[in-house]
Amino acid sequence: MSNRNSTITLTTDFGNSEGYVGAMKGTMLSINPDLLLIDITHEVNAFDVAAAAFVLRQITKYFSAGTVHLVVVDPGVGSARRAVALRHSDQYFVGPDNGLFTLLLETETPDQMVELKAPDDSTLSATFHGRDLFSPAAARLASGTPLEELGTPFAKLKHLQWALPIDDEEGIRGWVVYIDHFGNCITNISRSLFEKRRTGRKIKGYAGSGIIRGIHNTYSDVPVNEPLMLFGSSDLLEIAVNQGSAAELLYVQRGAPVNIVFGNPLDSSSTDGSI
Amino acid sequence: MSNRNSTITLTTDFGNSEGYVGAMKGTMLSINPDLLLIDITHEVNAFDVAAAAFVLRQITKYFSAGTVHLVVVDPGVGSARRAVALRHSDQYFVGPDNGLFTLLLETETPDQMVELKAPDDSTLSATFHGRDLFSPAAARLASGTPLEELGTPFAKLKHLQWALPIDDEEGIRGWVVYIDHFGNCITNISRSLFEKRRTGRKIKGYAGSGIIRGIHNTYSDVPVNEPLMLFGSSDLLEIAVNQGSAAELLYVQRGAPVNIVFGNPLDSSSTDGSI
Amino acid sequence: MSNRNSTITLTTDFGNSEGYVGAMKGTMLSINPDLLLIDITHEVNAFDVAAAAFVLRQITKYFSAGTVHLVVVDPGVGSARRAVALRHSDQYFVGPDNGLFTLLLETETPDQMVELKAPDDSTLSATFHGRDLFSPAAARLASGTPLEELGTPFAKLKHLQWALPIDDEEGIRGWVVYIDHFGNCITNISRSLFEKRRTGRKIKGYAGSGIIRGIHNTYSDVPVNEPLMLFGSSDLLEIAVNQGSAAELLYVQRGAPVNIVFGNPLDSSSTDGSI
Repeated sequence: MSNRNSTITLTTDFGNSEGYVGAMKGTMLSINPDLLLIDITHEVNAFDVAAAAFVLRQITKYFSAGTVHLVVVDPGVGSARRAVALRHSDQYFVGPDNGLFTLLLETETPDQMVELKAPDDSTLSATFHGRDLFSPAAARLASGTPLEELGTPFAKLKHLQWALPIDDEEGIRGWVVYIDHFGNCITNISRSLFEKRRTGRKIKGYAGSGIIRGIHNTYSDVPVNEPLMLFGSSDLLEIAVNQGSAAELLYVQRGAPVNIVFGNPLDSSSTDGSI
Repeated sequence: MSNRNSTITLTTDFGNSEGYVGAMKGTMLSINPDLLLIDITHEVNAFDVAAAAFVLRQITKYFSAGTVHLVVVDPGVGSARRAVALRHSDQYFVGPDNGLFTLLLETETPDQMVELKAPDDSTLSATFHGRDLFSPAAARLASGTPLEELGTPFAKLKHLQWALPIDDEEGIRGWVVYIDHFGNCITNISRSLFEKRRTGRKIKGYAGSGIIRGIHNTYSDVPVNEPLMLFGSSDLLEIAVNQGSAAELLYVQRGAPVNIVFGNPLDSSSTDGSI
Repeated sequence: MSNRNSTITLTTDFGNSEGYVGAMKGTMLSINPDLLLIDITHEVNAFDVAAAAFVLRQITKYFSAGTVHLVVVDPGVGSARRAVALRHSDQYFVGPDNGLFTLLLETETPDQMVELKAPDDSTLSATFHGRDLFSPAAARLASGTPLEELGTPFAKLKHLQWALPIDDEEGIRGWVVYIDHFGNCITNISRSLFEKRRTGRKIKGYAGSGIIRGIHNTYSDVPVNEPLMLFGSSDLLEIAVNQGSAAELLYVQRGAPVNIVFGNPLDSSSTDGSI
């Protein structure tokens, strides 16, 4: 019978060229050979905690209750940063306490949080906690060990200095938090904030060298190589180009500001298919 | 007991750096946690339908009956292109109807074809059908749902403008359809066409800056860094270099013409090991 | 029930962009659909036998008894090089006999070694033994076929010309055998050799443009962007930089010499935290 509590997802900055991830997998399978290990990505840029936080936001809601998400992007390995395991929305999260969970949790607090105990048997290397500390914790959680047996409760997770967008009656100022494989530029402006502030008015978006009017529903609503704004698959405002790279076309880099300005009320029908 | 009908292969252009593929996997495992998900590649060049079609040709015959191949390279996502599922040679195929299956099917028609219904519950995003439409269809097929329950039959798949090579008594003119990781240049000239036309004559091949005589059996039949022609693991004529890159050595790019010219009848034995 | 004897790890130089690895997986799953296939890496540099040997050393000890390690980095495919399967420390290894197992075995001899028989049914392509010869052998081993049924015993494996470091009373001269994803420079100097020769003295390490004093325990023992020496997760001496790339900072390339020079006896306490 399948055990819905046995899936572990892996997100790291270890790359796919060496044996680091393989050693983690071997460690987990040695604890429980029935685990289902699902690679999310090992190509987070080295030490890029914010990018890993974004990937985690992209994927968690598509996994079942009981899934364990193992996330190791850990510039502070060997320092005093906490190693933690969390329970949130019926899923588990294991990794360093360095802000990795900020985008996922936003302002919420997990249902349960423990600081991981170091393994008893002195197998802990100083440089590879992904293998020696986080992988065993994830494997045990996914095998049914209760969270409280893995460590001691603590009160407050570290948050990234990841400011929310600034918004008022005139518009919203956010920025690009991630540029994906296709060159789509994803901002920190959520659909709910946008709808709340817009109140039926026309909009212009300023991003890099581009000024874009209206919101479209999908890439192919505009001609090939034309830019557009839409809410992407994470419900965040996205600057995109139909069959092209918005980052290249509009000279947008990660961190670049995106300004949304509200204008007159919308006409009854738009002339270009946007809304 | 293992269920031979539960393997899904994944081929996309989503890259391995973000959560897109992870979200697809979570979606499928939430439908059926016993699925076996096998990554083929997520590094097809963005929007390169022809490359995905080639990868699909490379792999399908090595998988068992009942395998579901999920292929999402979808420049037209959100447009009117059809979303389809097919049955062919006892395997299943799910993806956009944009020519992806051309190289696999050549001139054959699948045994069964349906256009996928959109999900009932309005979870379909306009930009990520890989997760919201194709993944659920693949998961259900692999879990035993009959193909006809996934959508409505239709009559004709879209074909790539992927001309066959031109051939006559004097020779064959084809071109390079793929350059692999090693720099091997794979053409659209099949072994069967080649043998039919050759009729025991000597041959010369013109590719990029190189003129190559004869066909060899394996890379090491020629000295290191020497070019050769052979039929590779897909039974297509390949321009290669022993322990080197033919693409670099001979300045061959994808799409470059390859001309095979037939000469005098073969001597009883060749002097260089080629045939 | 899970079968601990059914895991196969895969390490190749085939890249992740095409169907080569997929065809191998399909071949193995067609033999036994219950196999657990664990990708280690497919991004070993083309034909880089030494890098694959290093990856194999990194991972094997973390996998259970009975695991089959399939390693295909095979510049000599189609030539007279042997195709082999080995049993060593209760695990199995399948691949070409070209030195791949040198770093793993060091001076030991495997418990059992066979030269693989070619398949009976003439499915052996001349260019893709990974799929046609090694994958079936690995799948059969992992499914319980005894090693001796896969081929004929032979006496001596090929060894890489991979000299051990040179050491005497004054110091140790080794070199960089691998530069990882983070720019850490891993040498061929093992912790045991180092400790045996050091005998409580101060040390200096010369690597690239850097002179580094003492051995630290972990990256964060030194300020950000400062170089250090430590024993990494493989128990080999490593030149590293806290949150940076030692390869870039110190201009170290793979193959570069690393000289360890012993000085005066250590003071009772070091002033900078190193030992």
